[in-house]
Amino acid sequence: MGNTFGKIFTVTTFGESHGTAIGAVVDGCPAGIALNEADFLADMKRRRPGKALTTSRKERDDVTILSGVFEGKTLGTPIALLIQNKDQRPDDYANLKHIFRAGHGDFTYYAKYGHRDYRGGGRASGRETAARVAAGVIAKKILGELGITISAKISQIGNIRLIDKKSAEFAKKLLHKAKGEGFSVSSEVACRINGVKAGIGQPVFDKLNADLAKALMSIGGARFIKFDACSILAGISSGEEMRIIIAFKPPSSVGDVAKKGRHDPAIAPRAAVVAEAMAALTLTDHIFRDFSGRLDKLKKIW
Amino acid sequence: MGNTFGKIFTVTTFGESHGTAIGAVVDGCPAGIALNEADFLADMKRRRPGKALTTSRKERDDVTILSGVFEGKTLGTPIALLIQNKDQRPDDYANLKHIFRAGHGDFTYYAKYGHRDYRGGGRASGRETAARVAAGVIAKKILGELGITISAKISQIGNIRLIDKKSAEFAKKLLHKAKGEGFSVSSEVACRINGVKAGIGQPVFDKLNADLAKALMSIGGARFIKFDACSILAGISSGEEMRIIIAFKPPSSVGDVAKKGRHDPAIAPRAAVVAEAMAALTLTDHIFRDFSGRLDKLKKIW
Amino acid sequence: MGNTFGKIFTVTTFGESHGTAIGAVVDGCPAGIALNEADFLADMKRRRPGKALTTSRKERDDVTILSGVFEGKTLGTPIALLIQNKDQRPDDYANLKHIFRAGHGDFTYYAKYGHRDYRGGGRASGRETAARVAAGVIAKKILGELGITISAKISQIGNIRLIDKKSAEFAKKLLHKAKGEGFSVSSEVACRINGVKAGIGQPVFDKLNADLAKALMSIGGARFIKFDACSILAGISSGEEMRIIIAFKPPSSVGDVAKKGRHDPAIAPRAAVVAEAMAALTLTDHIFRDFSGRLDKLKKIW
Amino acid sequence: MGNTFGKIFTVTTFGESHGTAIGAVVDGCPAGIALNEADFLADMKRRRPGKALTTSRKERDDVTILSGVFEGKTLGTPIALLIQNKDQRPDDYANLKHIFRAGHGDFTYYAKYGHRDYRGGGRASGRETAARVAAGVIAKKILGELGITISAKISQIGNIRLIDKKSAEFAKKLLHKAKGEGFSVSSEVACRINGVKAGIGQPVFDKLNADLAKALMSIGGARFIKFDACSILAGISSGEEMRIIIAFKPPSSVGDVAKKGRHDPAIAPRAAVVAEAMAALTLTDHIFRDFSGRLDKLKKIW
Repeated sequence: MGNTFGKIFTVTTFGESHGTAIGAVVDGCPAGIALNEADFLADMKRRRPGKALTTSRKERDDVTILSGVFEGKTLGTPIALLIQNKDQRPDDYANLKHIFRAGHGDFTYYAKYGHRDYRGGGRASGRETAARVAAGVIAKKILGELGITISAKISQIGNIRLIDKKSAEFAKKLLHKAKGEGFSVSSEVACRINGVKAGIGQPVFDKLNADLAKALMSIGGARFIKFDACSILAGISSGEEMRIIIAFKPPSSVGDVAKKGRHDPAIAPRAAVVAEAMAALTLTDHIFRDFSGRLDKLKKIW
Repeated sequence: MGNTFGKIFTVTTFGESHGTAIGAVVDGCPAGIALNEADFLADMKRRRPGKALTTSRKERDDVTILSGVFEGKTLGTPIALLIQNKDQRPDDYANLKHIFRAGHGDFTYYAKYGHRDYRGGGRASGRETAARVAAGVIAKKILGELGITISAKISQIGNIRLIDKKSAEFAKKLLHKAKGEGFSVSSEVACRINGVKAGIGQPVFDKLNADLAKALMSIGGARFIKFDACSILAGISSGEEMRIIIAFKPPSSVGDVAKKGRHDPAIAPRAAVVAEAMAALTLTDHIFRDFSGRLDKLKKIW
Repeated sequence: MGNTFGKIFTVTTFGESHGTAIGAVVDGCPAGIALNEADFLADMKRRRPGKALTTSRKERDDVTILSGVFEGKTLGTPIALLIQNKDQRPDDYANLKHIFRAGHGDFTYYAKYGHRDYRGGGRASGRETAARVAAGVIAKKILGELGITISAKISQIGNIRLIDKKSAEFAKKLLHKAKGEGFSVSSEVACRINGVKAGIGQPVFDKLNADLAKALMSIGGARFIKFDACSILAGISSGEEMRIIIAFKPPSSVGDVAKKGRHDPAIAPRAAVVAEAMAALTLTDHIFRDFSGRLDKLKKIW
Repeated sequence: MGNTFGKIFTVTTFGESHGTAIGAVVDGCPAGIALNEADFLADMKRRRPGKALTTSRKERDDVTILSGVFEGKTLGTPIALLIQNKDQRPDDYANLKHIFRAGHGDFTYYAKYGHRDYRGGGRASGRETAARVAAGVIAKKILGELGITISAKISQIGNIRLIDKKSAEFAKKLLHKAKGEGFSVSSEVACRINGVKAGIGQPVFDKLNADLAKALMSIGGARFIKFDACSILAGISSGEEMRIIIAFKPPSSVGDVAKKGRHDPAIAPRAAVVAEAMAALTLTDHIFRDFSGRLDKLKKIW
């Protein structure tokens, strides 16, 4: 029951990294929003392993819409999204059957459930985030209709802060070196949100910053969430640009028994678009929750 | 956000009757339960249109497990179940594009969402219940491990109470006549639950009878829910056998503009297994919710 | 965790019948609604034991507003409502300490919790409904602003249907007789809801009729919920008047060991206003949940 | 609807800082736990303004138990806790009626609700946390029965890390100076949790670290949450000690128009016990949610 996010605009994800498929069910999406399978390509590609900064594993993350869309527009009913798992090469992971990798969820999943999918992390794999990104595309479409934009970028690799072209070059070299030599580095993502009007957030527990913190901390490897002051006061948006930093630990699998697996030397390059997705899901849910806040709004649309 | 049922053991369903597929995501299922695709056959067949008592439409409701099961056992992670829609014959429904059928959800879906899937009812179709039945199979497996059995049967067709072979014969004839002549009749299902220990239910709003009433009233066409006294007191099970009657209105589509569609003269024949599923989902969720009720139980499994 | 009702507009109740106080916390009420303690008097009086039809116990159910209201208007923050328990006469119930009364929650509460408040039923007492009625007053105020009215009335006492003055006289006599002779009778309440526009309800599990069924079945002693067709189709309101029948079992305590307690010969007389409250809470929550259903509505109030 | 925390073990808080009272309703507490009003004294005192490190306002935070406890033990029913607001001196805040204080929730609450309690911050006041601390006492009692301890301490004041007696002395002086001169400083709390077995947490969204981040970020003034690695892997506890840092911004009210109000130069001194409470509420809820995770556990207590 920990696989559903949101209260009004909800996302339920499923799928192990080396099972048949992963996916998401988005419930609470308004009707009448144009949506087709091509809308997912750009963000799915951003998450997909690229050239220098990310893994060489050739994932194909085409999103199939199973329900909730008719004649090119959302129906208001649940939107089921499916992403097939391809290129699984189970033999790469066969040696992991009897091993709990340090720094991974192997042991904790086993401690909790007593039965685990040892092939590449199962549900604890970074692959799970593909379903979040797909759901995030829908949230971003809704937010876009309201004039809200979300942008997350790599802001730090190891100790290198990415402030200009030069530092970006250094970071690129560091990642290459890390990949080649089998070590890994910490990294950070900076997320900016614009266009949210004043008044969004639900004190005292569901403060906008509290729910954003949860959303971002739920990304694998996140260790640290930091808000810049002023844009959220007492848990409610002030109308200013929001800036959030998410720090990730160095990924654990490089240079260990999983060497044959195809992993990344840093988390941020692929996590930026995941952070955008999680922020978008959180904001959409909160905006929908806000609409009952004032009687005059209620009357306007009754 | 109305497509998830349960608090701890949850089911999220999706899918329009004439879209690509329907399905369910079951979250909160304990790890270690044996489960394979053959487990679904019997209940899916009970729901499937048969010979005399139900429609002649040839649905195939094979359930595919997409996630949450590894080496034949549940992982504790979300179990995604997929049922393809086949034999869709969209032309049968083309004439419904501009018509709101009386007694159906056509108008209310349109009023709510402003955009609807007019092909055979979309999400409001009885086909949606196939996903419930599939999820119910998992709930019944869990309940079976605890010694709980649920059995729902047709108890009334029109005014004929099914008390013996003779009345069953009469009912069968009435259904044939109704199908042939294009009229429809009301019907009832009687559901019996055995093996629930005393102490299950969460006063004061989530009483066991209140949540069962919701679960059963959420089946399309249900109009009336009645509990026999004694087995649930103050919202909590007493340990006695539970008996519940669910009454259904006559289905609306026979003899109207949807004549070409393939519908049933009464709801109960196919709804009995759906009622079982909904009762099983409710009980499983409540049993899981109960385990924090007493400190001695907590300590026993900590 | 079964003491909160609703998803967006929520009510949490607390309190044992013979403890210090009972009360409710209403969360999700829009700001700017005029509210003061006198607003509660009429409904609390309707629930309070009166003359002929209900018990002679002299309860005082003044509602104190502890929070959520400032300068006569709601703040949008939680509204805490407190009702003191007076005239407790614990000696009346001392003899119940070691007895599980038949038909009450005494045994099931004990089975569940292993420790119970034996004084007059504790949380399972009908007194718990006073908190629901208080919360319902707030819901009705909101619904009133939207032009929605809810009216519940006794429709049957024993076998007497209340259709005119004459039958009402008969019923009155029956209740007097029952009270005098120490027996009790079944009863029904009919609830009518007007002014709900088409489009309210959340398929497929949170259908409006399903959630109303739960709400009404959660009232102590309810055994049977029946919807008239046409006003809710596929779980969504059609804009027509809604009519619902709630049937109650005969109350259990008359003529038994609790004779010294002051109880009613039928449930309906005091339950009508409780049914109104529960219907109002359900509708308010569903109306708030609906506002995210369509993009054009969202844009209108953004 | 943002005032309830938790899914199975839930806390709903209410109350404005200068209203009649604040309080909490705890639902889902197991029956049979010894609890009386004296149990709250120690933690309420820790939160109460003391001598040097905190404000001089003389709050009295006695907790009254209104329900859920009978003959000294919890009943399993909702526990309502009430804390009267005393010494309100509304004149202190009269000048704030037409002013939105910088860095406070004054503007955002107004933007959201259009009507606000301008007396001392209303619901956005730090006083709201008294209800959290009271609820936290109950959670700690439950955790104590399972051998779990939580301890939060001030770890930094301004730039001074509190590592020994000497640095503590420096910090004390800095706070005195800040109070005297009317400026304020940032601060940090370090929270340690011991005794949590491996296996607690609900991937993928309700990871234990994600829910702790939300819980701690919901404390007013929190800007930054950081987890030490190793104790939570893939969202599930590993059995190791957990260490979390919460950083707070400098409180906003010192030296501004609210000078006459009685506020603190740093947040951490009073927030440490609030952090403990929030961590305790989160853990209790997650432990209760875990008990359905494995079939063998279920069978053991059925």
